[in-house]
Amino acid sequence: MGRFKLLFLDRNSSVPLQTQLTNQLKELIQRGQLTAGETLPSSRDLATDLRISRNTVVYTYDRLISEGYLHSRMRSRVYVAETAPELHRAARGATRKRQSVRPPASVSRAGGSNAPIPFRPCQPDVQLFPLEMWNRLRNRALRTTDRSLLHYNSAATLGIRELRENLAIYLRESRGVKCEWWQVAITTGSQQALYLLAQLLLKPEDRVYTENPGYQGAVRAWRAAGAQINYMAVDGEGAVLPHFAVDTPKLIYVTPSRQFPTGVSLSLARRLALVNGAPDSCCWIIEDDYDSEFRYDAAPLPSLQSLDAGGRVIYTGTFSKLLFPALRLGYAVLPVALVECFQTLKSIVDDHGPIIDQATLAAFLDTGAFYAHIRRCRRVYAERQQAFLYGIQKGSLPLELRYRDGGMNLTGFLPRGLNDRAVSERLRMAGLDVPALTSYVAGEQEHLEGGLVFGFTAFTEERIRQGVETVIRVGLLDS
Amino acid sequence: MGRFKLLFLDRNSSVPLQTQLTNQLKELIQRGQLTAGETLPSSRDLATDLRISRNTVVYTYDRLISEGYLHSRMRSRVYVAETAPELHRAARGATRKRQSVRPPASVSRAGGSNAPIPFRPCQPDVQLFPLEMWNRLRNRALRTTDRSLLHYNSAATLGIRELRENLAIYLRESRGVKCEWWQVAITTGSQQALYLLAQLLLKPEDRVYTENPGYQGAVRAWRAAGAQINYMAVDGEGAVLPHFAVDTPKLIYVTPSRQFPTGVSLSLARRLALVNGAPDSCCWIIEDDYDSEFRYDAAPLPSLQSLDAGGRVIYTGTFSKLLFPALRLGYAVLPVALVECFQTLKSIVDDHGPIIDQATLAAFLDTGAFYAHIRRCRRVYAERQQAFLYGIQKGSLPLELRYRDGGMNLTGFLPRGLNDRAVSERLRMAGLDVPALTSYVAGEQEHLEGGLVFGFTAFTEERIRQGVETVIRVGLLDS
Repeated sequence: MGRFKLLFLDRNSSVPLQTQLTNQLKELIQRGQLTAGETLPSSRDLATDLRISRNTVVYTYDRLISEGYLHSRMRSRVYVAETAPELHRAARGATRKRQSVRPPASVSRAGGSNAPIPFRPCQPDVQLFPLEMWNRLRNRALRTTDRSLLHYNSAATLGIRELRENLAIYLRESRGVKCEWWQVAITTGSQQALYLLAQLLLKPEDRVYTENPGYQGAVRAWRAAGAQINYMAVDGEGAVLPHFAVDTPKLIYVTPSRQFPTGVSLSLARRLALVNGAPDSCCWIIEDDYDSEFRYDAAPLPSLQSLDAGGRVIYTGTFSKLLFPALRLGYAVLPVALVECFQTLKSIVDDHGPIIDQATLAAFLDTGAFYAHIRRCRRVYAERQQAFLYGIQKGSLPLELRYRDGGMNLTGFLPRGLNDRAVSERLRMAGLDVPALTSYVAGEQEHLEGGLVFGFTAFTEERIRQGVETVIRVGLLDS
Repeated sequence: MGRFKLLFLDRNSSVPLQTQLTNQLKELIQRGQLTAGETLPSSRDLATDLRISRNTVVYTYDRLISEGYLHSRMRSRVYVAETAPELHRAARGATRKRQSVRPPASVSRAGGSNAPIPFRPCQPDVQLFPLEMWNRLRNRALRTTDRSLLHYNSAATLGIRELRENLAIYLRESRGVKCEWWQVAITTGSQQALYLLAQLLLKPEDRVYTENPGYQGAVRAWRAAGAQINYMAVDGEGAVLPHFAVDTPKLIYVTPSRQFPTGVSLSLARRLALVNGAPDSCCWIIEDDYDSEFRYDAAPLPSLQSLDAGGRVIYTGTFSKLLFPALRLGYAVLPVALVECFQTLKSIVDDHGPIIDQATLAAFLDTGAFYAHIRRCRRVYAERQQAFLYGIQKGSLPLELRYRDGGMNLTGFLPRGLNDRAVSERLRMAGLDVPALTSYVAGEQEHLEGGLVFGFTAFTEERIRQGVETVIRVGLLDS
């Protein structure tokens, strides 16, 4: 019943219990926490455990069977279907007649403010962003081009040239990325880059290696491509690489600068093993460098891409964290061999992205305002990190903050035996947003350490102090 | 010390001496000019040699040790680390296999102005767009929300709620579309809606029916899903539908308001045959209503979606043509059964689109500025259409302009036997952009009529007159 402890039904919600249960079971299956062939508890047992009526469970199982998620053998036991988590199947199997005037639970989320609350990870402080400057540059770009920025731009599938050129300069100088401007592809967030790369590079059943714990948006992209996913554990040197002598994956996805979410940096030895050891024939490497700009002590290790002689490393990044998330501008630096097919697929997926923001960002890079903004953020975030660390140390909290050389988050590892999800849930009840480390885990999570992922960049020192006091008050141990 | 003579520190640079020294030592190692196991000068010697403080050298060595480049034995001498040889091998490989510096042909297109030239189809006149009003609404949205628009918005996968609500109102009122706000999904252009739908609804080998001639962006989306494509001819009643008695396609794609690019409107009889006749079991219908707003005479026929009782019609549209193309905002109105899976796939493909433009558009709809703009465009475009028709008639050109009740384009059918691509090429040489009708044809084109597709909306009456004169001068017959 272990995994079913994750089920949590909210009796105060307007969403019916059966809908809640259905959605949560679907999610467990889609996340791979319930895998094909696995047995579900009997309706009687689950009903008792969740303190709901047995019929609610029976109807939920029936619905999930009809939707193809579950399977029932000999009318006794219910299993996760062999074909279950495949998203496309859900769509194809959808019955058209099921019209209702209530939105599905997953889309009924209210609007309200979406300002992050402490300590949501990976959130920049949007109040630091020089919005007036940005707007001035935007207006200037519109004025000086006599509105030509408003036109359709058939040459902009991978982004407008000015932005790609200025970004290439930045990446060469700051991260040693080796590239020409036309290898830089602008995408809708880095998520789109990962999706497009998964579609281009992976056939069904191809093997991909991905970090665990890791960025789940990437895992979803591999899954959508039908790939077979192998999880790399993460230790003190970063991701534990596959044995290339016995294994030839198609794609390896890493976050070398600061592993997400643990924060450990991939050691130089592993970087070299990766770029030199991965089999020549077929292996691509995606280096997701989502926040290397925020390093407060030493300079970062060389990017994988800069170490790679074989043209096999694809470097991806985002402006969501440097500027503001709602901008949704990410990028990939593509090996020469991938430029054309990436462009073709991007043109089918959405033709091209919005132009005015790209022109504004190009000017923002060009005038140096970008660099000034990064420097300012780096200074402020370093202070906030110190404020956070000071509070945690003063409170003698049982959190081991192993990796603290930079980034936007600090992962506090919990003593063995503590259930990080339960702690995270208690903090949520107290008004904090501190994800459990294991919430970034796909597949098995038996042997993985628990922890809490604290983002500190979006909050003033005062809010950080208050937040840490709340953590101290709630406590981490008595779960 | 020979190799260390290569070190050169620039005292006038804004880059700190320590950073300069660090970078240059790294480079020596990466280039293989310093190899594994080699001893570095003592900090005292190197400092004397470079005339810098000894601490600068000590700190530099410390940093390179921590980054794995150097190694220190018995606290006396500093060596190049064992892992380093790989570095220079990688670097040498890079120069050896030096990547091509020329972009692939398909990506080398120059920037330059992308303002459309007569008579490029489907281009709005961006000079008519009330940009100042748009910018005011944008600034107001940013101001009144205290920058919360800049945050990541996990509830905005299908667009922000205000926009979906206002758009639902518009579509209900103007096109009779039956929908709740949460069935409206905002996409990056309507192209993304078509791509996502193709991925959701089609498995490889599923049969899709699509118009021929027709919108080739749609055909590419079906092809990317591996579907088997059947082409529907287009006659005076619009697309010629499949025989549902003998055929059960998975998806039918039509542009009923004005077939693209011929301009013919799907007859009411065929509309009814489509929504009532398509087999219940599996058939989805996409109604791409890309420019029904621009109808200058009669009111448009009811949308397919409004006629459909079975929840099988997916209605798609775009703001590219109503506002400006670079905005890249499109939408789909989804049957209830598709909302969740569309949202899931969209979240994998690009998480969500940019937010500020969406908030601005929501306000633009809300204030009524949108409606005023449409009315203005309709008036101006109607005049331009008249100017175009007048010119063509006066010039006695052999063009049969069959469908002239609205839209942004007029298709002139050519006399049988004329090669429309050759004519289009002659016009291109004369400085005009008039695509051949058969350039919108996929698959066989043996029995299809030739023609020219003239867009008239982006050009002043004066430019239209000049353009028509050029057509008359070039002539259409002597190919």
